[in-house]
Amino acid sequence: MQHTPIHGIIAYPVTPFLADDAGIDETAFRQVLSALLSTDPAAIAILGSAGESAYLREEEWQRAVEMGVKVVGGEVPLIVGIGELTTAAAVAKARFAERAGADRLMVIPVSYWKLTDAEIFAHFEAIAAATSLPIMVYNNPATSGVDMSPALLVRMVQEIAGVDLIKESSGDIHRMHAIHELSDGTIPFYNGANHLALEALAAGAHGWCTAAPNLLGSAPAELIAHVDAGELEQARTLFYKLLPLLRFIVHGGLPTTVKAGLRLQGLEAGDPRRPLQPLTGERLEELRRLLAAY
Amino acid sequence: MQHTPIHGIIAYPVTPFLADDAGIDETAFRQVLSALLSTDPAAIAILGSAGESAYLREEEWQRAVEMGVKVVGGEVPLIVGIGELTTAAAVAKARFAERAGADRLMVIPVSYWKLTDAEIFAHFEAIAAATSLPIMVYNNPATSGVDMSPALLVRMVQEIAGVDLIKESSGDIHRMHAIHELSDGTIPFYNGANHLALEALAAGAHGWCTAAPNLLGSAPAELIAHVDAGELEQARTLFYKLLPLLRFIVHGGLPTTVKAGLRLQGLEAGDPRRPLQPLTGERLEELRRLLAAY
Amino acid sequence: MQHTPIHGIIAYPVTPFLADDAGIDETAFRQVLSALLSTDPAAIAILGSAGESAYLREEEWQRAVEMGVKVVGGEVPLIVGIGELTTAAAVAKARFAERAGADRLMVIPVSYWKLTDAEIFAHFEAIAAATSLPIMVYNNPATSGVDMSPALLVRMVQEIAGVDLIKESSGDIHRMHAIHELSDGTIPFYNGANHLALEALAAGAHGWCTAAPNLLGSAPAELIAHVDAGELEQARTLFYKLLPLLRFIVHGGLPTTVKAGLRLQGLEAGDPRRPLQPLTGERLEELRRLLAAY
Amino acid sequence: MQHTPIHGIIAYPVTPFLADDAGIDETAFRQVLSALLSTDPAAIAILGSAGESAYLREEEWQRAVEMGVKVVGGEVPLIVGIGELTTAAAVAKARFAERAGADRLMVIPVSYWKLTDAEIFAHFEAIAAATSLPIMVYNNPATSGVDMSPALLVRMVQEIAGVDLIKESSGDIHRMHAIHELSDGTIPFYNGANHLALEALAAGAHGWCTAAPNLLGSAPAELIAHVDAGELEQARTLFYKLLPLLRFIVHGGLPTTVKAGLRLQGLEAGDPRRPLQPLTGERLEELRRLLAAY
Repeated sequence: MQHTPIHGIIAYPVTPFLADDAGIDETAFRQVLSALLSTDPAAIAILGSAGESAYLREEEWQRAVEMGVKVVGGEVPLIVGIGELTTAAAVAKARFAERAGADRLMVIPVSYWKLTDAEIFAHFEAIAAATSLPIMVYNNPATSGVDMSPALLVRMVQEIAGVDLIKESSGDIHRMHAIHELSDGTIPFYNGANHLALEALAAGAHGWCTAAPNLLGSAPAELIAHVDAGELEQARTLFYKLLPLLRFIVHGGLPTTVKAGLRLQGLEAGDPRRPLQPLTGERLEELRRLLAAY
Repeated sequence: MQHTPIHGIIAYPVTPFLADDAGIDETAFRQVLSALLSTDPAAIAILGSAGESAYLREEEWQRAVEMGVKVVGGEVPLIVGIGELTTAAAVAKARFAERAGADRLMVIPVSYWKLTDAEIFAHFEAIAAATSLPIMVYNNPATSGVDMSPALLVRMVQEIAGVDLIKESSGDIHRMHAIHELSDGTIPFYNGANHLALEALAAGAHGWCTAAPNLLGSAPAELIAHVDAGELEQARTLFYKLLPLLRFIVHGGLPTTVKAGLRLQGLEAGDPRRPLQPLTGERLEELRRLLAAY
Repeated sequence: MQHTPIHGIIAYPVTPFLADDAGIDETAFRQVLSALLSTDPAAIAILGSAGESAYLREEEWQRAVEMGVKVVGGEVPLIVGIGELTTAAAVAKARFAERAGADRLMVIPVSYWKLTDAEIFAHFEAIAAATSLPIMVYNNPATSGVDMSPALLVRMVQEIAGVDLIKESSGDIHRMHAIHELSDGTIPFYNGANHLALEALAAGAHGWCTAAPNLLGSAPAELIAHVDAGELEQARTLFYKLLPLLRFIVHGGLPTTVKAGLRLQGLEAGDPRRPLQPLTGERLEELRRLLAAY
Repeated sequence: MQHTPIHGIIAYPVTPFLADDAGIDETAFRQVLSALLSTDPAAIAILGSAGESAYLREEEWQRAVEMGVKVVGGEVPLIVGIGELTTAAAVAKARFAERAGADRLMVIPVSYWKLTDAEIFAHFEAIAAATSLPIMVYNNPATSGVDMSPALLVRMVQEIAGVDLIKESSGDIHRMHAIHELSDGTIPFYNGANHLALEALAAGAHGWCTAAPNLLGSAPAELIAHVDAGELEQARTLFYKLLPLLRFIVHGGLPTTVKAGLRLQGLEAGDPRRPLQPLTGERLEELRRLLAAY
């Protein structure tokens, strides 16, 4: 299946929670989404890793999808992230997202027991068969415990109708080379490793999947614009300016650091869900300095 | 808190499922548990990694606990495994298991976002505060994505009332050395890496947490008996006899391989839950040969 | 100490041997050097990893230096590679190279026993004190067994007079980011990982240390020219054209693959020194296809 | 080829140096060897990793062999370690050792460029063809940069006449399992990872290759005696008593730590060769405490 590939920033909101485990803070979630829409994104992807998708109860997840559809509205494509241990649960979520009006799915397999390539393939096949939405396959071994090789990623795009884009967050630039080569440059791939943003674009990534716009506004979009214009010097200067913060949010965990940063910037998006704890002390001060420096 | 440590085999049943995602096969689960009780276990631990705990729906998990309490009855201690992404869900399960009559919990932290030591500590503190059951802390980075250092494991036993035993499944014998040394030999630790069984006992492990008795009957218990009797030569001979099968079930994923082996032995325990797929083809034949050889 | 940094390709010749362990093939070495001079290099570095420096007897090494000075003559800077297990041997080679007329040294520490940062620092201090030649510090953990952190590399440039450039061959782009950041962009760094050439330039590398010109002529220099001109699209196209061969020579070992390629191209540079064996069979055919494709 | 396998401790002396890079301190070397002979060794192996073999000049290496033959004399088998980058140099050393009267060789391949299995096999074939001495093949990837799989190790013993024993220092107990299984228990293997001594013996190691007797006297031999007698409890108690010191000498580098320890015990064996530096400050104090505690 071929869709017009997204080019540019795919922006990932955090999912704000009310205190005392009382569910999603809908007011704050609307604010986060609205703010992201002003950062020049090519698409918005809710319920990704940054969105603490894995930590939501089912009804919370469904409510977030409904809100995303309503707020993002059609301004830009709305992508819904799905990461489930069982195929049955992933299929159910895919169906829900389609009914709710999402434009696209981003699906990450999650493991407890390691999965074979055949198991991963069948997982995506089952999900794709259950929905007419296009699917971005998402590789992020550090969080999901599943590491999909470039060969498997490319094969799934080539052989499963509905799977059409690849998000690579392993942080290994050679994987991007391999995707380019194995598909003769025909499969659009996206970089999800923030601290590799410049090099991924140099290697031909169609876009950058990132929660950074929550804190950095349209700067990530500007980086892409510089690269598109052949302004490598300016792109590099901007990248190195952003890098300390990008590295901080990657290494500190996106929900933890982005929520802390939003609070510092005056948007109260609550704390991450336990066992994740809010940023405090010296690390919070470091984030404050990084935001001020930028 | 001090409890009499368990010495010997802690046996882990698989959780049989009905076809078509129709829930637990209760008849088969009873058979699996009854068979394990005849393998000379020191305790039985349901809903562990081998028990596909991570793949169960909430009501299935609860039903499995109730059945475990009923079948194992008090013949040996019944341990209930808990592995949840959120602290709230882990606390709820701990409370349920206590109400249902379990004797002990085994708790593994599971990550999507990496956890700091402070986050892991608080997770266990919250669970321990919610139950009067003793807790075995379970480290298995390859499945859970969380790697707890020996220092953290020992500190949690020393500082959190209710956490009293350590299960180490990283397969790193040096971790066991460190636990011994950091606690002056006072904290009982258990080995969960099947293919390290002999050496872990040599290093002083109080027991072996294993799903192997599902397929190997009382042979694992005999290994421990040999070591206890100073019969190292016999222990080694037995270990090397068991090793090919132990390695096979470790590397192939316990639910997948143990369920396949039970089927080969005539106990129909169903297939693992999707995306996990049943063992077939050459690998199934390999298992058949290994079982026959043993 | 500040020197005008080299910008562009630093080209690495192989060291041709006569058959039967009879020493350097001087005629072939001259041919290899002359051919490299026509590939538009910014400098030529003899006796590097590709030059089998580690496998030479002392008198062979000295002869190679003398020949390099004579052939490269001043057309471009001549860099001499030094990689010795003992500080005394490295110092002796540095002195020899200076007396022989080399323009610069490239020094890689080599380990049997792991070295502390203090030991590495003192090693470079001793060499720098023994010569007035500027020194490029060379990090290549995969071959040398020593992994120098960006912090150590930058500190040695800042604190040891005579050490002024960094060659990074770990293949980790984040190391280059760190060198840039730790030195505020003031220390020129060079990429030695061929299959990372494009991204390293994007990240700000001053040049590319490579044996690829032996087989690819001036194409590597053209890649740098494209990047310098802001022609990222053309640079990327060229890079992906070169990449299969670059990857092949990296993974197959430079002396083995480059000597085989030279032979295929009609320049007989002999075999690598035992235990290294010449490329044969299917892998040789693969190289033939890669060269033909390019 | 079959030889009576050595059972017990293979003891490794350090090689004492005179100050100012003035060569081997022959008096001290004799003292070190004599002291080792009183620690109940099954054999003595000079010029191993602990003996700084890699850092010696050729004439020093030869002198050490001659001294070893003279001092050890036939009391126990004298093993000579060879670790050379080129096959030619290794062959030359093998011939020298045989002429000088050594009883056996221990050969470790050393890499700059990674070696294929075929290259390693041919390296050992060439050495074995050049000598009638039996050869222990020595795997120590952390120092040598070459990692030989159990399959390769076993195959070389089975197919190369003269190669008969295996020393495994990777510290991976599963390698020992594999050697046992691949050879049906017929190939004697020896453990070279000090901090794994107890478990390697449990797994069936014929002996323990160690520099620990330099500092610990006959305690390592006693550990083996306990295991031989089925006294696992006593073996474990002794092992945990020795472990802090064993771990210290492994992690600190054997020449560095053992020479420092000998000095603390009153045997002046000089400093390790640069770039290795003598132990000082807090780490020296730690060693002093460990020796006192033992």
